[in-house]
Amino acid sequence: MSTKVTQGDLVSLIDENENAYILDTTAQTDHFKGVGVFSPQSLVGLEYGKTFTVGNKEFYVLPVSLPDCLRSLKRKAQIILPKDAADIILHCSITPGKKILEAGIGSGSLTTVLASIVGHEGKVISYDLREDFIKHAVKNLKRTHLDPVVTTKEKDVTQGIDEKDLDAVILDIPNPWDAVGHAYNALAVGGYLCTYSPLISQVEKTVEAIQQHPFIGIRTFESLERDIVVKKQGTRPSFSMLGHSGYLTFARKVLK
Amino acid sequence: MSTKVTQGDLVSLIDENENAYILDTTAQTDHFKGVGVFSPQSLVGLEYGKTFTVGNKEFYVLPVSLPDCLRSLKRKAQIILPKDAADIILHCSITPGKKILEAGIGSGSLTTVLASIVGHEGKVISYDLREDFIKHAVKNLKRTHLDPVVTTKEKDVTQGIDEKDLDAVILDIPNPWDAVGHAYNALAVGGYLCTYSPLISQVEKTVEAIQQHPFIGIRTFESLERDIVVKKQGTRPSFSMLGHSGYLTFARKVLK
Amino acid sequence: MSTKVTQGDLVSLIDENENAYILDTTAQTDHFKGVGVFSPQSLVGLEYGKTFTVGNKEFYVLPVSLPDCLRSLKRKAQIILPKDAADIILHCSITPGKKILEAGIGSGSLTTVLASIVGHEGKVISYDLREDFIKHAVKNLKRTHLDPVVTTKEKDVTQGIDEKDLDAVILDIPNPWDAVGHAYNALAVGGYLCTYSPLISQVEKTVEAIQQHPFIGIRTFESLERDIVVKKQGTRPSFSMLGHSGYLTFARKVLK
Amino acid sequence: MSTKVTQGDLVSLIDENENAYILDTTAQTDHFKGVGVFSPQSLVGLEYGKTFTVGNKEFYVLPVSLPDCLRSLKRKAQIILPKDAADIILHCSITPGKKILEAGIGSGSLTTVLASIVGHEGKVISYDLREDFIKHAVKNLKRTHLDPVVTTKEKDVTQGIDEKDLDAVILDIPNPWDAVGHAYNALAVGGYLCTYSPLISQVEKTVEAIQQHPFIGIRTFESLERDIVVKKQGTRPSFSMLGHSGYLTFARKVLK
Repeated sequence: MSTKVTQGDLVSLIDENENAYILDTTAQTDHFKGVGVFSPQSLVGLEYGKTFTVGNKEFYVLPVSLPDCLRSLKRKAQIILPKDAADIILHCSITPGKKILEAGIGSGSLTTVLASIVGHEGKVISYDLREDFIKHAVKNLKRTHLDPVVTTKEKDVTQGIDEKDLDAVILDIPNPWDAVGHAYNALAVGGYLCTYSPLISQVEKTVEAIQQHPFIGIRTFESLERDIVVKKQGTRPSFSMLGHSGYLTFARKVLK
Repeated sequence: MSTKVTQGDLVSLIDENENAYILDTTAQTDHFKGVGVFSPQSLVGLEYGKTFTVGNKEFYVLPVSLPDCLRSLKRKAQIILPKDAADIILHCSITPGKKILEAGIGSGSLTTVLASIVGHEGKVISYDLREDFIKHAVKNLKRTHLDPVVTTKEKDVTQGIDEKDLDAVILDIPNPWDAVGHAYNALAVGGYLCTYSPLISQVEKTVEAIQQHPFIGIRTFESLERDIVVKKQGTRPSFSMLGHSGYLTFARKVLK
Repeated sequence: MSTKVTQGDLVSLIDENENAYILDTTAQTDHFKGVGVFSPQSLVGLEYGKTFTVGNKEFYVLPVSLPDCLRSLKRKAQIILPKDAADIILHCSITPGKKILEAGIGSGSLTTVLASIVGHEGKVISYDLREDFIKHAVKNLKRTHLDPVVTTKEKDVTQGIDEKDLDAVILDIPNPWDAVGHAYNALAVGGYLCTYSPLISQVEKTVEAIQQHPFIGIRTFESLERDIVVKKQGTRPSFSMLGHSGYLTFARKVLK
Repeated sequence: MSTKVTQGDLVSLIDENENAYILDTTAQTDHFKGVGVFSPQSLVGLEYGKTFTVGNKEFYVLPVSLPDCLRSLKRKAQIILPKDAADIILHCSITPGKKILEAGIGSGSLTTVLASIVGHEGKVISYDLREDFIKHAVKNLKRTHLDPVVTTKEKDVTQGIDEKDLDAVILDIPNPWDAVGHAYNALAVGGYLCTYSPLISQVEKTVEAIQQHPFIGIRTFESLERDIVVKKQGTRPSFSMLGHSGYLTFARKVLK
């Protein structure tokens, strides 16, 4: 049995290239690529799952999913990719109700994933040095209605962390080693530290800093994702592949 | 400020090789590898984060995390690895409160991840053909107190799915193509189908079956994880690496 | 002690982007990208290893190497990449004096490698269905003076192989399975068959065909190459990476 | 038409697990794993390509190939793998008649490949600090009759290189940066330097040393090889995969 778009719904419009546009049916107007100004209210009453044509473009009308949120996110800074965000969730034990700190916020990509998983009983605190990044990320979060779960601070994480008893601290900054001590202090016992770094030298300095504190389970890895092209004429891996994003390092707080 | 183990807590004991043993402080006796019979009640009053010696083995006493649950899980069947479970979470939009079906249950590894993420407001329904697998997996789930979130059924998913309006259906069976039609019917509009298959021919048959139904965003990929060894003498990738686990295929339900 | 370009030399000009242009000093005129018409004879007397400026472009003057031949090759068809050509050399036991058949010739990329390694005591026979490919490849081979080692035939390898006692047969055609029987007959005892195929289904059909004949050591693999970027600010893998070229299958002829 | 083993032949015996044993038919006795003492002369007259049973083991009788030489090589030190040796051949322009220096010799694995490719008109000079490694490697080379192409020296390559006008210098030592200057001086103009190092810090120091001299085309990469298992029930990548061997760095000598 299908349902219809109701006043107040957040709606995904998905085009044929899998681009996602998230619209709030309470808004009078919005605009999106290839369509221009548009009234989201006109979506009310449409059947979810069916297509909807506006101008000469066709879109599927769907409830909003986490992949939609990530795909519709407007980028300002380099983002943490889904493959790496997924590993962070699992290896940092991010589950509903958890209280997480991340620094920096970037475009809010990892923030979106963290907020979606900790949910309304959880909390994501996000530090960034740059006010413009915070403003941009908050705009992205508001569009997906995840902003109530997130608290942002224009603050340098290497200068200290205000929060205590955090379940995880995730550092995506150029010098994570300078924040490792603060992270240790801010974490609850058994909480997880994660750092994301593109360079080997960053990993080395970070691991060295982590080893100065009572952490266990220190581990660094990289993940590679390769698309498989399945066509009538046959199956093969995609020629196109990302060679590198960043190394993930994990550690868990214990006491001396 | 540290906290102490309280009567009723579920506790992780982590040894120097990162093995995790999950113990219920309400239990009179339990036993685990290298220790033998042991009274979990004796953990009450210990400080979380500190070590505890039993016999000649030393363990860190920690609150239970999702990685602990996965590491302590007793294997009977081949499991879905954390790297693949992580991708399933993200690409199927598994968030708190979602209602998910998986088939088969195997040892309950993916079930553990799904149940941890959907939480107590969510639901995981797990089908398996084999009663012994279900019993074994439920034992694993009971140990980590995730069993209330999971409903198991001794049932062949290729014969039909009882549930409706599911947010995701995840198939880890030898012939996922035979369940694709049932999955389509059981999914809510906008819900995700995921299949996990080691063989290319399985992927091909599955993608072909998916294309017979109104699904969008059909995508197959593989992920590879490589450990990085960071030592005083220098950094290098690990010589040891898993060459393959399975291909993940994703698709999202729309209407004709 | 350095040497100078002598009348009759084949010379490589290498620009700052590592592009290679191979010029014959006996030629009156030649032309190349970004320079236009140019007299190779004017290179005579220049010191090898030093730069030479023509127009506003600077080039290193060097003796011709195998990598230069490959980099200067003009492409018409898809080429076999150096990483795969290198594996073919080693796993087919291509050494000086060997007699090799390849089909098809494509742009002559693999032909260039094979001819360089078998040398003037060896022989490369190259079949292709298309006269235009052969003409184009021969032009490439003449430019690098490798043409005396190569015999080309406008011929369909799936219709039969004229030669006998070949040390290796290398098939880069869409349907290698149709030539496996001919390859078996044309190979010397202990000779190697190699097929290069982008699709899994091609590999499957080829391996099945190979198994119909007395071959041992049947093995298929893929190779991946990832550049490492070493910069002052740190080292990391390149973001840019080719996800796939083709699968290589090898087998060695024995008798029943 | 098949040929028979003749007095004086070097013969490969290949068992069902693809192990290769190289035997000299002029030798009175030899011994090999699973067979024990054996007279190679008894092979004379056997038909190449057919099987031969000794004790309860069956072997294919074949002419010796480069893969056989590598597979039969007795290991004392860590070896350079075929995938890396193949890349060295191509990227260092190793072709018949070339004069190459390598350091160290290890078990003679790369030496075997280099000697096979440069052939009897070429020359491989191999330095090693350790007399025992040289003796062991020479024993391996004698067995495959490649020893006439190779000159060994018990000598520290970081203390200087005697030879001049080398076509390539290949360094597989813990501190290649200390030999880069000597390699530059020993190379002919247009000659190639290659270093093989497992650690990132080694690569960084080496690249820095290379940049102190007039080299062009400086490039570092790693290669990964993944077996594909083709079986009746379907095709998949092998679970077993080597995660890392070493990074290869290449550079080409020019003049200031």
